[in-house]
Order: sequence, then structure tokens, then C-alpha cells
Amino acid sequence: MKEELSTKTRTESDLIGSREIPESAMYGVQTLRGIENFRISKFHLNEYPLFINALAITKMGAAIANSELGLLTGQQTDAILKACKEILEGKHHEQFPVDMIQGGAGTTTNMNANEVIANRALEIMGHKRGEYQYCSPNDHVNRSQSTNDAYPTAIHIGMYYTHLKLVKHFEELIDAFQRKAEAFKHIIKMGRTQLEDAVPMTLGQTFNGFASILRNELKNLNFAAEEFLTVNMGATAIGTGIAAEPEYAEKCVKALSKLTGWDVKLSGDLVGATSDTSCLVGYSSAMRRVAVKMNKICNDLRLLASGPRCGLGEINLPAMQPGSSIMPGKVNPVIPEVMNQISYKVIGNDLCVAMSGEAAQMELNAMEPVMAQCCFESADLLMNGFDTLRTLCIDGITANEEVCRRYVHDSIGVVTALNPVIGYKNSTKIAKEALATGKGVYELVLEHNILSKEDLDTILKPENMIKPVKLDIKPNI
Amino acid sequence: MKEELSTKTRTESDLIGSREIPESAMYGVQTLRGIENFRISKFHLNEYPLFINALAITKMGAAIANSELGLLTGQQTDAILKACKEILEGKHHEQFPVDMIQGGAGTTTNMNANEVIANRALEIMGHKRGEYQYCSPNDHVNRSQSTNDAYPTAIHIGMYYTHLKLVKHFEELIDAFQRKAEAFKHIIKMGRTQLEDAVPMTLGQTFNGFASILRNELKNLNFAAEEFLTVNMGATAIGTGIAAEPEYAEKCVKALSKLTGWDVKLSGDLVGATSDTSCLVGYSSAMRRVAVKMNKICNDLRLLASGPRCGLGEINLPAMQPGSSIMPGKVNPVIPEVMNQISYKVIGNDLCVAMSGEAAQMELNAMEPVMAQCCFESADLLMNGFDTLRTLCIDGITANEEVCRRYVHDSIGVVTALNPVIGYKNSTKIAKEALATGKGVYELVLEHNILSKEDLDTILKPENMIKPVKLDIKPNI
Amino acid sequence: MKEELSTKTRTESDLIGSREIPESAMYGVQTLRGIENFRISKFHLNEYPLFINALAITKMGAAIANSELGLLTGQQTDAILKACKEILEGKHHEQFPVDMIQGGAGTTTNMNANEVIANRALEIMGHKRGEYQYCSPNDHVNRSQSTNDAYPTAIHIGMYYTHLKLVKHFEELIDAFQRKAEAFKHIIKMGRTQLEDAVPMTLGQTFNGFASILRNELKNLNFAAEEFLTVNMGATAIGTGIAAEPEYAEKCVKALSKLTGWDVKLSGDLVGATSDTSCLVGYSSAMRRVAVKMNKICNDLRLLASGPRCGLGEINLPAMQPGSSIMPGKVNPVIPEVMNQISYKVIGNDLCVAMSGEAAQMELNAMEPVMAQCCFESADLLMNGFDTLRTLCIDGITANEEVCRRYVHDSIGVVTALNPVIGYKNSTKIAKEALATGKGVYELVLEHNILSKEDLDTILKPENMIKPVKLDIKPNI
Amino acid sequence: MKEELSTKTRTESDLIGSREIPESAMYGVQTLRGIENFRISKFHLNEYPLFINALAITKMGAAIANSELGLLTGQQTDAILKACKEILEGKHHEQFPVDMIQGGAGTTTNMNANEVIANRALEIMGHKRGEYQYCSPNDHVNRSQSTNDAYPTAIHIGMYYTHLKLVKHFEELIDAFQRKAEAFKHIIKMGRTQLEDAVPMTLGQTFNGFASILRNELKNLNFAAEEFLTVNMGATAIGTGIAAEPEYAEKCVKALSKLTGWDVKLSGDLVGATSDTSCLVGYSSAMRRVAVKMNKICNDLRLLASGPRCGLGEINLPAMQPGSSIMPGKVNPVIPEVMNQISYKVIGNDLCVAMSGEAAQMELNAMEPVMAQCCFESADLLMNGFDTLRTLCIDGITANEEVCRRYVHDSIGVVTALNPVIGYKNSTKIAKEALATGKGVYELVLEHNILSKEDLDTILKPENMIKPVKLDIKPNI
Repeated sequence: MKEELSTKTRTESDLIGSREIPESAMYGVQTLRGIENFRISKFHLNEYPLFINALAITKMGAAIANSELGLLTGQQTDAILKACKEILEGKHHEQFPVDMIQGGAGTTTNMNANEVIANRALEIMGHKRGEYQYCSPNDHVNRSQSTNDAYPTAIHIGMYYTHLKLVKHFEELIDAFQRKAEAFKHIIKMGRTQLEDAVPMTLGQTFNGFASILRNELKNLNFAAEEFLTVNMGATAIGTGIAAEPEYAEKCVKALSKLTGWDVKLSGDLVGATSDTSCLVGYSSAMRRVAVKMNKICNDLRLLASGPRCGLGEINLPAMQPGSSIMPGKVNPVIPEVMNQISYKVIGNDLCVAMSGEAAQMELNAMEPVMAQCCFESADLLMNGFDTLRTLCIDGITANEEVCRRYVHDSIGVVTALNPVIGYKNSTKIAKEALATGKGVYELVLEHNILSKEDLDTILKPENMIKPVKLDIKPNI
Repeated sequence: MKEELSTKTRTESDLIGSREIPESAMYGVQTLRGIENFRISKFHLNEYPLFINALAITKMGAAIANSELGLLTGQQTDAILKACKEILEGKHHEQFPVDMIQGGAGTTTNMNANEVIANRALEIMGHKRGEYQYCSPNDHVNRSQSTNDAYPTAIHIGMYYTHLKLVKHFEELIDAFQRKAEAFKHIIKMGRTQLEDAVPMTLGQTFNGFASILRNELKNLNFAAEEFLTVNMGATAIGTGIAAEPEYAEKCVKALSKLTGWDVKLSGDLVGATSDTSCLVGYSSAMRRVAVKMNKICNDLRLLASGPRCGLGEINLPAMQPGSSIMPGKVNPVIPEVMNQISYKVIGNDLCVAMSGEAAQMELNAMEPVMAQCCFESADLLMNGFDTLRTLCIDGITANEEVCRRYVHDSIGVVTALNPVIGYKNSTKIAKEALATGKGVYELVLEHNILSKEDLDTILKPENMIKPVKLDIKPNI
Repeated sequence: MKEELSTKTRTESDLIGSREIPESAMYGVQTLRGIENFRISKFHLNEYPLFINALAITKMGAAIANSELGLLTGQQTDAILKACKEILEGKHHEQFPVDMIQGGAGTTTNMNANEVIANRALEIMGHKRGEYQYCSPNDHVNRSQSTNDAYPTAIHIGMYYTHLKLVKHFEELIDAFQRKAEAFKHIIKMGRTQLEDAVPMTLGQTFNGFASILRNELKNLNFAAEEFLTVNMGATAIGTGIAAEPEYAEKCVKALSKLTGWDVKLSGDLVGATSDTSCLVGYSSAMRRVAVKMNKICNDLRLLASGPRCGLGEINLPAMQPGSSIMPGKVNPVIPEVMNQISYKVIGNDLCVAMSGEAAQMELNAMEPVMAQCCFESADLLMNGFDTLRTLCIDGITANEEVCRRYVHDSIGVVTALNPVIGYKNSTKIAKEALATGKGVYELVLEHNILSKEDLDTILKPENMIKPVKLDIKPNI
Repeated sequence: MKEELSTKTRTESDLIGSREIPESAMYGVQTLRGIENFRISKFHLNEYPLFINALAITKMGAAIANSELGLLTGQQTDAILKACKEILEGKHHEQFPVDMIQGGAGTTTNMNANEVIANRALEIMGHKRGEYQYCSPNDHVNRSQSTNDAYPTAIHIGMYYTHLKLVKHFEELIDAFQRKAEAFKHIIKMGRTQLEDAVPMTLGQTFNGFASILRNELKNLNFAAEEFLTVNMGATAIGTGIAAEPEYAEKCVKALSKLTGWDVKLSGDLVGATSDTSCLVGYSSAMRRVAVKMNKICNDLRLLASGPRCGLGEINLPAMQPGSSIMPGKVNPVIPEVMNQISYKVIGNDLCVAMSGEAAQMELNAMEPVMAQCCFESADLLMNGFDTLRTLCIDGITANEEVCRRYVHDSIGVVTALNPVIGYKNSTKIAKEALATGKGVYELVLEHNILSKEDLDTILKPENMIKPVKLDIKPNI
């Protein structure tokens, strides 16, 4: 965030007093105070275009409703809408320099929007910046609104746009896993539970599992995002709608639906809704669930790719960079590792959101800015992670088919397939003997003459061990 | 958990070796090992009747499916089902003494159920405990199953029962808030944002807000619980269905639907599902959201009841006990305080669940037992908290109507109601003067002759400040 | 917690009114209210003997100080001290049935102690229970105290006792790791970083590392525990010492030092100290750090023991129970798994403690009871875990020496040892060729005639790769 | 992070292959790969000057030790040291563009430092960038090092510098509270416990309490930071010191001590230390404790300043900006609110650190980069918060002396002061009557003739209620 360098200024005043504003600034005195009061983090509003756009849409919705109620002149309405459209086209975003983490429950962000839109509207109307008698940040752009309804509504809209984008990136990643599931569907490998050898499966099933557990998260993300479509416009200060007129809320929500193309709904109880930030808690939880699964999957990728000679070595991740400043030839799973770290960061952000969520007091939650910051940050991190993981890792994974097959061949776990035929106790005996002697299950079953070679071959055929089968086989015992 | 005192024993053996089991024990050697291996926590299976019942139902579902496939004899099936029904009637629960927190991914719990049911079935069939050749814990009760499908399925069913109970207690609490909303709907009070005086509302709106934000959580809890109805029966060891027959999974799930009366569904991908514990992560998150809101509400109750003479004093909580060992006459908000502490505990448990959830490795998550323990514990704590809060606090809350009214009368915040008429700038001037002089807004508006007394009375009429209104009033300025 | 069954009662009264108390109860009316108000959790005071003892010690310290100031008669003092000593001998603990999680900032627990001690003192003095005119819970046992100083002081003393016990169990575990370090010091194995083959080390170094990182935690635990030795006795209600006399605090702390044998200190600022629970936050953090490390170590144990045929298989954990209800012969690392779960639970509890810690408001933190509950619970879980892990796992670990050696022999990572001689670039070439051809590093170096066989042997001698060495070798290149 | 625009390039190669590097880049091929692989977050190395300086110091320490062992030529040593000194002077920081969140356990950051230093050294030696035969990133700058010792050591040094800076800002804040303690020491006010009226104190005691509980954290921060002074230089890849010579570690640590002026120590067990990130977990916990207290204090400031007419109104915070876009004249406690949000963010980061800390596997923790990022971010946030809170809030706080006094006068809580004289039961009766009748304690005591007016005046004298006193007063009862 850079301060303006222009030497020409205009004077603006507010409750606290007067201040000189650089002529180049489209924002006004309250934004200036916000800039000065909150020099906190690396996260500034102008790096969140979807949120800025959402602020513009919110202001458009209000302007349309106010206009329909006769509370704005046609000229004011047109100018406000035009200014907002420019923002939607990507203009003036640099005029939103305030820190995302701010006291005042978002008033600084809301006033930043009000001031930029008012000054741009003034220009459009042929007036000068600061001539707020013609179009005021508070009385016109913010008409019938409070920060306490406009700010959360803009967060909702901004987060819903972010959600739609997140889902797109997420689906691309899921598809990448799915393609590998298809590519690896013929490769037999050992499954492992509790890190111990279990029973055979295909490498395709492994990757299909990754895809399927991620795909399940889409439902959860969508459910959580759905809540963003319920807004509290018309609540004004505390949900009672003071300083707004009857029908304003409904008209505003209708306008928002039209502007976004979504089914935006009005909160059933505006008082409760105004201090309630649980949709951010909910969406953050949903992202946390994704992070929890990404961690599991990345851990698995790293385990399966461990080696090259002293690990499991079932798959190969693309080599992206030398793995060590000292160990020549070493290649590390750097891409899953960075996705892991993103996941931890998302989980940490989620705790910040949940704790802030419980800090609501009476009619408002003053901690909403950091909740929004965390949600936008986490979504960005996930999107970057999804793309990085997909393009620099998943797409390039290859399998060591021979290694996978050898594990199955050597394993004791295949004894499980004998269970339905010879019973758990007898199978246990074979397994114990295999472990003690180093012999194979196949060999031992024949040695003890428990099954005919033919029947044993049928049971242990790979395609019979990776799905439920009905085999009509009787043991010799 | 007490060990059995009987001196008569029977010998049982497993992979590890032989052990003497007290004749009085319905469980067998593997449960005994579990008891000895896991002396960890204060949480034992026999304190979770809904979970024990769910284990019985799971085993019934499997027995029915196995029977239909001809994998159990009629006699075995009947005996197993009868044994399970006894458990559902509340019998034999003391035979489940294992610690809820256990290694082995739930094998101890699953085998505890298998052993108790097998031994009881043996008795029903006229055999002696331990004569497993007629009905074995592994080959018959656990037929076509692994811990890795039976255990999570039982957790799902147990948690769904718990959810239904939780919701009932929760709704009773919500209704209590709603009754107070009705009782207090005529009491005008000041709303506060960021702890600063805002604008008027009714005390009924406050309590209605509490009820409405809690009621919203029902939807979220139900959505999260819905996932419990999808189970992975038929997955057996790792999701491939090894040692199970085709159609077993479908038959089993159908039986479970019939037994429970719910729409139980089979997981779309059994491999992915078997290592996936995200429905516990999801339900825990949903409980966390409730806890976050309960914290907000309890904090508010304590703020509103603060005093009696140096606080806000708008409401009175029932006096439950002397508040201090030293300060005579002191009464403290002990019931909301204990609900706060429950909420923190639930949030802590949720972190345990999330972290355990990401500890899944390859085909299984060995940490599921502590996840289940936390979910059951949190649900119990919440239910106890809901009942305690409702009966010992909410139901007995009274309002200090006069205090509430006086705050509104004295406040500067009512100036907001003038906003649409005289504009934000002029209102700000009045507010500033009021603050500086200690005078009232009403008095100042008349003093400056901004509005007629009649118009001012209309604007400041309480019923006009607690909802959106259209007033056709023009200022003198 | 069972309610008393005796039918004989005595009448006691308090601020709220009169109640019948069972004659068998040594506690009084306020404890009864506490029992009824807080039916919350599975954690009751009578399961925490070290905390009950600490309450008795606290009351003894106060009684001695009061006696010295002439505020108790000799008879009262003697009787109170004798009653407390009985508690220290393990008597009357069943008289502390209140829930550890309670509203009222611990008043219920403090009054439970005051009432039991007063009634037992009355008996000792020859009076009847309830004849509080001779020795009152409030005026005599609680003399010069408030819950707000006596309760946190008792928590401090109870936690310090708990800490001393925890450290003892922890050291036993560390010693067990150390013994294995000694036993395995001759076994060469591959080290792994980022799960990829790195360079050789000994298995002894691995276990020595476990021991050393845990031993470091002792310093941290002790530092955190040290804070418990600073207490706020004499603060009374809010730290100002109202209703206490000058010198009382110093005399009380001196008495506590004598009773415990520790260097108990008085808080430098009693007002700040009275609302401050950060020593619980600090000690909980210290336990969390231990849990974080236990997780790392248990994860490693499970990785190193993975197999038996499709994993790393470097070590064997003792087989404690059959690993699967379906997979015969399977043995799982159930003991490290349960330690992992304990660690997650401790980390969850720590979050509860931290969040409760920030809920302090003005002169007190009403959430201290759940903080104490979590700290006592976490310490118990860790102690149970340490003993379980040591006796059922670590002590019985064996090594697969041949497996370990083979990994080193086959590895490419040993090329790192050539680095100082032939440089990183040349080493990289060898490593790349080894990976591409499947050949060994040894073979390739000779093939390319980079070093003489003798020099190569010197460099790659195991004892030269597991510590810094100075070898005066020049390459042929 | 901007990519270089120069069109001239040089060719560099590594294990993966060759790449063109812009001639303007002082970094090399591995940094370039790092830039491309990790496009993740808003946190780039070049925004952390203290960390970059610490990398330079680490490399200087290694160069000095290598030089003493004859492993670098004099010319190489001088050039490397000169290059590092330039970095310490603030030069070349823009050459560190890599993302702080990166896979590879910090190899990218370490190689970024190695490459920049090597290329600058080459220039100093009169060679061209990329002529690594004269001074190579790996063989010379990184000589005797691995990322696995150099990276954590640089983090330790960077965090210790950060700690020293943090403490300075923190102490300034504490002093600000202390000054207010002095300024307000004569103002009598009511203390509150559990938000209910307790007993009198001074406003000075309140602020002194803030100062004293924060000052206690200095000890904790310093203890945690102390651990940063123990480093694992000489561990090289996994702690065994492969590719380093005997005495190197000691010489290096000695050089680091001299360069920093601190007592830098070598880890007692380099294997354990190399995978251990617990000093980051520890320091993060220490910051969390500070955040927990800042939350408590900011919550209190907001409560005490609540109003202006419907809250407690005991103090005034400086008005920093208009509080509302709709409510004219409203002023909100925006500065404490932003400090609260910082605290939540720090607590969230701490969870990220703890979870990442337990992700260590075998000989390394690949998640260290995000741990470092979180620690540096949290420290920055806290420093910004401390300065903002101090200059924009604490320094300007004023007291409403009259309001404070009136609360004491009206309160029932002063009855506690009568306790030692008339006993808890009698005091309770007075308190109950006061509450029921609305009368004052003073009035009632006289009315019931319990004490003489003179004695009562003595007891209730403010200066007698805010500290322990000995009053020789006998009641009439």
C-alpha cells in the first residue's frame, strides 16, 4: 500500500475533525483514517478483487432499492451504478488500500467503498471529488445501510464468487487424480492398514480413492457456501432496520439476485443474523475438511514414493528440483510437501475464524474483518496449492509396476482370501508359519495340502482379490 | 472397569497365545488383551449405550446378509440375532469394559462385540461359552466383515442415534429462548454494537435472535449427521471386499435400513470410504459451530445480567448458589459459565478430531477410536449443558424493564432515527453536542428547532425505531 | 457420583435458602447445590487425589497464618489442621463429589473443601456437623481467603505435585529409549529425510535421538511448572486483600513452603495475578510440546516397523494382540497408536485451556475450572501413555539388523560421503547414473576410476559415514 | 516478487537439467526452480530482512570454520565474507524472491542464499556470475553444510533477532500501561469478578495489573527464545556430520557467537536436533500466551470504555475514526479490536506451527518453512499491534473519575469489608436486604445498629478497602 504522492489536496471532515486528502485519491477522510489506524498486515483490500467487486455489487443492490423507493434521484442512481460498474470492470481497485485486518467491524472497508463510489459518481455527474452535497458517501451511497449489513453482505458475495472459483480449481485436481486412477487400474499392489501389510488392491483403486474422497468434499463445500446466499441487507445497524424503509430489504435482495444471477435470500431474523458470522465459521470448516484430506493424500503420495531404494518405491513423483544442498542426486517430494504446509496454514486460519466467531458481543461481531481475511487467504492458498499439485506433481506421476507386483507376491496378507474357505483360525496358522519361516503363503498351503493347486490359484488370482467374489471351493480340511 | 472376580475360568487362544478367561465373562481372549493393553482414560465403552446398541445393530445387519447368502446356518443366525436383541434391550452392556481410546483402529471394540455376541449366541444355542466351533467371533459373528467396515459403521449408527437425541435436547433449549422472546417482546432496550450504545430494540428481539441463530444450527447439524447414514459395510479389510461375496454389501445395508428405520446408504467408493473419517470431522465441526454460538449467547447473558449495581443489569438470571466464599450476597452467573466451559471443551475435542482425521495413512485411519470418543463425549457434554442451561437458567430469567427503558431514554444512539430526515452530517452534530454537554438528543433537536415536537415524537416513538418505517417528515433545515 | 442414601438429615442454609443435608455427608449446603447445579462431565473432584490434597494443604497454610495473627483460636486451628491431615492421609476423599467442570470460578470446589474440613473439625472438637458457630466453613476455614486466591493456589499445588509425578513417569520412558540406543548402537541403517533415502547412521543414533529430544522437554516442563510455585494467597476477592490483614499473605506463603518443602513464592502483583491463569496455559503448552514429540516418535516407530514384507521392516514392535478381525496373522502397532491418540487428546485439551485462558474478564477468570480439569486430565493421559508405551512397546523392541544393513548397501545416498573429495557436481553425476542404471555407487566410482578401491573403501566404511571425519584423500579427477 | 526483465542470460545446470538465468539475477538455477515451483503465498523471503541477514551470518560462520580447517582458500573466504557483509548492510535483499512457504524443507531458501553469495563472491573475486568453478554455491558457500543444519540455524538466528526487536516493542507497550497505572492510582472504582460487582480497587491497580501480567510474559518469551541460541551446525544431512570434518561444528558455533555477540551453543545431540523444530513450537506458544493476555486486556478495555451512556463508561479511549456509517456520533474501540484480531491470528498461526511440528518424519521435518513463516508473521503482527495499541489507544486513555466513584458508593460489594468484623452470615443478611430494598450497605448497617458510625466509616474508607488492613473493631452483635 503506497500513500499518494500528489501535493494537491482537498479538505474533508468527519466526526473527528478535518483532514487534507490528496486530490488523486478517490477515497476520502474515513479511508485515510483507516489507512493510518491500521498498519497491521500484508493483506490489503486491493489484493482481493472478488471482494472489491462484491462491495460494488452490494452498493448497486442498495442503490437500485433506494431508487425504487424514491430515496435517490435518477441522476444519483445512474452515477452510483456507473461507478460500481467501472469497479466491476477492474477499475479503481488501487483506491482500496486499507488493511483487511481492521478494527471497527468493517466500517473502514465499507466507507472506503462508499467514498470511492461517491467521488467517482460525483465525477460522472460533473461535480468535483468531495462535493458530497450532490452525492454523499453516507447519505446516498450508504443510504438505508449500515456497515453491519453492507459489509457482511459484501463478504458473502465475495466469498461466494471465491467459492465458485475454488471449486473449479478443485475439480481440475480431482480430475487429475481420476485420470491416474484410470491409467493405473491394471497395476496390482498391496494395500496397507496401520502401515502394516494388508491385502491386495490396484494402484488405480488408490487414486480413485483419492478422487472419490475429494469429490465428496464438493457437496460439503457447496452446502457451506449456500449459506453465503442468505444476506442481512436491510438490517441496518443492529437488525431492526432503523433508518430503512419497509420493503427496502426485499427490493435490495431482489436486485442482488438479478445482479449476480444467484438466488440471494433475505435472512429470516435480521437481528440474529447481524451478529452472526457462522457462515464464515462453516465455510472455513469446510475448507479445513479439504485440508485434512489433502494432508492425508499428500502424506500417502510421499509414503508411496519413498525411496528410491530404502522406501516403498511404488510410484514416482516428477523431479522438480535438486533435493538437497549436500546429498547429490537426491530428489524430494517438494510439491506434496508444500501442499501439506498450505493445509496446516488453512487449519490454523480456521482456528482464527472459529475463535473470532465466538467473540461476537450482543448485536455485532467486531472481529469479522479477520474472519474474512482468513477465509479469503485460505481459499487463495488452496487454489494455488491445487494448481501446483496438479500440474507439477499429479499429472506426472508414474508407477513402478514391478515393485508393486513383487510386494503382493511376497506378502502374507493374501492369506485373508483363504478365510472364507478355511476359516480364520486355520488362516492364522498359515500366516504364523509364513512369518516364522519366511516361506510364502502359496507354498505353505500346498505343502500342508489344504487346497488343491487349482483351487488355490483361483482364490489367489489378483482379479479375485480386489473385489467381492463367490468361489465355490471346499478345503481338504 | 472392574476385572472379574470369579475364579472359574476357560481357556481361549489367539494369534498371540492362550489365556484364561473368567467364566463369568461373556467376552473372550481378545477383549481381555484389549483391557490389559489400554488402561488409558476415564472413557469406557460400557458408558456409551448408544454405541453398544449400534454395534449390535451392525452385527445384526451382517448376520441377516450372511444368512441370505447361505453363509450362516439358520440356527446360528437366530442365535446371533437374539443375542443382539438382548443387547438392544440393555442387557450385557457391562460386558463391554474396554477403553474407548485404543490402538488397533477399533479392533478391540469390534472383537469385544464379536466375542460377547458369539458367547451369548452359544448359550442360546445350548452350547458353552468358548465353544467357538459352533459360533465363532471371527468366522460367524464377524463373517464377511472386518473391523475396518464394521467399526466405522457402528460409529455412524451410534452417532446418528446420538444426533437424534442431541437435537431433541437442543430444540428444547431453543424453545426456552423462544418463550422468553415472546415474554420480553414489549420491553424496549438499547442495542449495542462493539459494546458501544447503538440503537433501540426490544429484549424480545434479543432472545428471538438467540433462538433463531441456534435454530439455524439444526440445519447444519442435520446435514452433517446425514453423512452418518452412508456406511462402508462390505468394504471388509481395505474397501476391496476381499472375503465377502457379491451382493453382500447391498443386502447388509438393506438390513440396516430396516433395522433402524433410516435410509442407510452404501458408500459409492468403498476404498476411499474405508480410510475416510471425514464425517466425524464434519459432525465435530457442526458441534463446534454450536459451541461457538453457545459461547456468544452465554457471554451475552452474563453481560446483560452484570451488576447488580455496577453493570448493565438489564436481566436477572436465577440465583443458583452463593457466588463467593468471601463476598456476602454475591450471586454469579454460574450456569452460563459452565456452558461456556462445555463449549471450550467441545472446541478442544474438535481439534483432536481434526488432527486425528488427518492421521489416516493409506487404506485406514488408525486414530478413529479417539475421534469417536471425542464426538460421543462432546455430544454428551452439550446435552448436559443444554438441559442445565435451560432448566437452571433460561426458564427463570426475568427482565429489569425499567433499567432497559432508562438506557434508551438517556441514549444518544436514537439520533440514528433522524438520519433519513436530517442527514448523517447534521445528526453527527447533534450527537457530538449531546456527548459534550450531557444533554439529550430530544432536547437538542427541539432547542435547535430542527424538527417540530410532533414530528420528533413520531420519529422517536419506540415502535418506530425497532423496525423499518416510512415517515413522511421534512426537517426545518 | 452417588447421592447419599441415609435418611437422617440436618438443615443448613445459605444465601439462597435452607436445604436438608444427609447426616452422612461431611459436606454442606453449598456442596449440595454444586452437585445439583453441575451434572456435566465424567470428571469429579474425588478422582483427583492430588488436587484434594492440595486443597487441604492450602487450607492448612491459611489456618496457620490466621492462627499466628490471632484470627483463629488454638482449638479451631488444631482441629482444622487435624482434619486436613486426615485428608492428606487419603481419608474423606469420597466427600468431594463435585464435577470438576463447574460455573462459579471454583467456588463450589472451595466450599466443598471448606465444608468438609469444617465439619470434620467440628467432630474433632466434639461438636456435631453443622454447628458452624464453633467452626464455620466461611468464617474460619476460609478465613482471610476467597475462592479467588484459595482455589488457584490449590490448583497450583495440585499441579505441581502432578508435575513431579509426570516427570518421574516421563524419565522412565526416556531411560527405556536410552537403553535401546545402547543396545542398537552397532546397527548401521539408512537415515531418511523427507521420507527419501539420505545417508547412513546407526539405529542407536535413532533411539538416542528419541531420548535426547524428549529429555530436552524436561527443562521446558520444569520451567513451566516453576510458575505454579508462585501463588496469590492473600489476594482474597480481587487481589486487593480486602478482609485480610497485613502480613497474612507472607505468613501463609511461608507456611505453604514449610508444608510442601518447596520454595513457594507470593505473586508480585496480586491484582494482576488473580485474574491470570497463564501458568495453566503455559504448563498445558509444555505438555502439548511433549505430545507433539510423542507423535513424531510414535509415527517413526510405526514407519520403521512397517511390514512385515511390504514396509520398511527395520524394527519389530512386540505383538500385543491380533491385529485384525479378518486378516489372519496381522499384527499392528497398537501401542504407539494409542500414544498418538493420547497426544491428539492432549493437544485438543490444550486448545480448551488456551481459549478458556483468554476468557478472563476484569478481576477474574471464571473459566479456570475447565482449565484445571484439562491440565489434570492431560497429565493423567500422558502418564498412562508413557507407562503403556514403555512396558508394552519400547522395552520389547528388536531390530532387523540384516534389513538395516542391506538398505545401506543398496543405497545411493552414500554418495554424499564422496562430496568433500570429488565435489557436489561429480557426485551428482554418479548418483544420476546409479539411479538410471540400477548400479551401485561403489561399482560406478570404480568403473569410472574416480578413486582407488582403497580410498573408496575408507570413505565408505560405515564408521566413517556416521560421524565427521578427516580423510586425506585426493580424487583421480 | 517480480521476475527479471533483462534479456541477457547465462546458462546454469543442476540435477534436473539446464536453464537460462537472467544476467541481472544474482541467484541461480535452483532459486529459479524454487520461484517456479512455489507460487503459493503473499510471504516472500525478501520481506524478512532479519531472516536474510541471519542466512548471511550463518554462511559467514561456516566460511570462517571452513577456512580455519583449510577447506576454503583465503580468497574464497574473503569474498564470501564480503558478500555476506553487503547483505547485512541491506544490499541484494531483492535477490531473495522465493516464497517463504516452500516444499523441500528449506532447500530453496538455502540455495537462494548459497547462489546469491556465490555469485556476489565471484564478482568480488573478479569472476563472472555463474563461474562456479571458482566459488560454488554447493562446494564452497555451502561447504560442510546441508540445508538441514544451515536452514534451521538461520531461522534460529533470524528469530532471535526478531525476538529482541519484539521485546523492545513489547516493553514500550508495558511502560505505557505502567504510566497509566501511575496516573490513575488515586481513582477508586469497583472491581468485578464474573462480571458481577465485587469489591473496590483503584483504576491504577487495574492498569498496574495489565502491566504486571504482561511483564511476566517477558520471562517466558526470553526462556523460549533462549532455545534459538542452540544450533545444529555441523549436523549436515541428518545429524551425523557426514561430509564435515571433526571440530568444524565447534569452530562454526564459535564464529557465530563472535558474529552475533550472543552465546551460541551447539546441540548436545545433533541427530535428535536435526528433525526437531520444537523451539519454534515453543516460541510460538510463548507468543500465543502473549496473545491470550492481549485478548483479555483488550476485552477489558472495551468493557470499561463501553457506553457512552448505556455501558460501564469508566474510561475513555481516544476517538480514532467515526464508528459507524449509519449511527452518527458513534465512536468505537477500533484499536483494541484490531489487537484482538491480531491475537486470534497469532493463535491460529500457533496451531499451524504445532501441527507442522508433529509432522517431522525420521531424520527431518519437511514442514519447517511454514513454521518459520508463521513465527515471523506472528512476531510482525504483534509488533505492529503493540505500537498501534500504545500510540493510538493506551497513551490517550482518560478516566471518568466520577463514574468510577459513584459505582463504589452505590455498590453492595463493600459489605465484604465488614466480613472480618461481623462474619459472613451477618454480612450476607445485610447484602440481601440491600438488594431487596435498594438501600445502601452504609445506611442499613447503621439502621440495624450493627456498628457505630465511626467504626463503619473507618472500615469503608476507600484506602482501607484496597489493601489488607488491621482494624480493631468489634461489632455490636
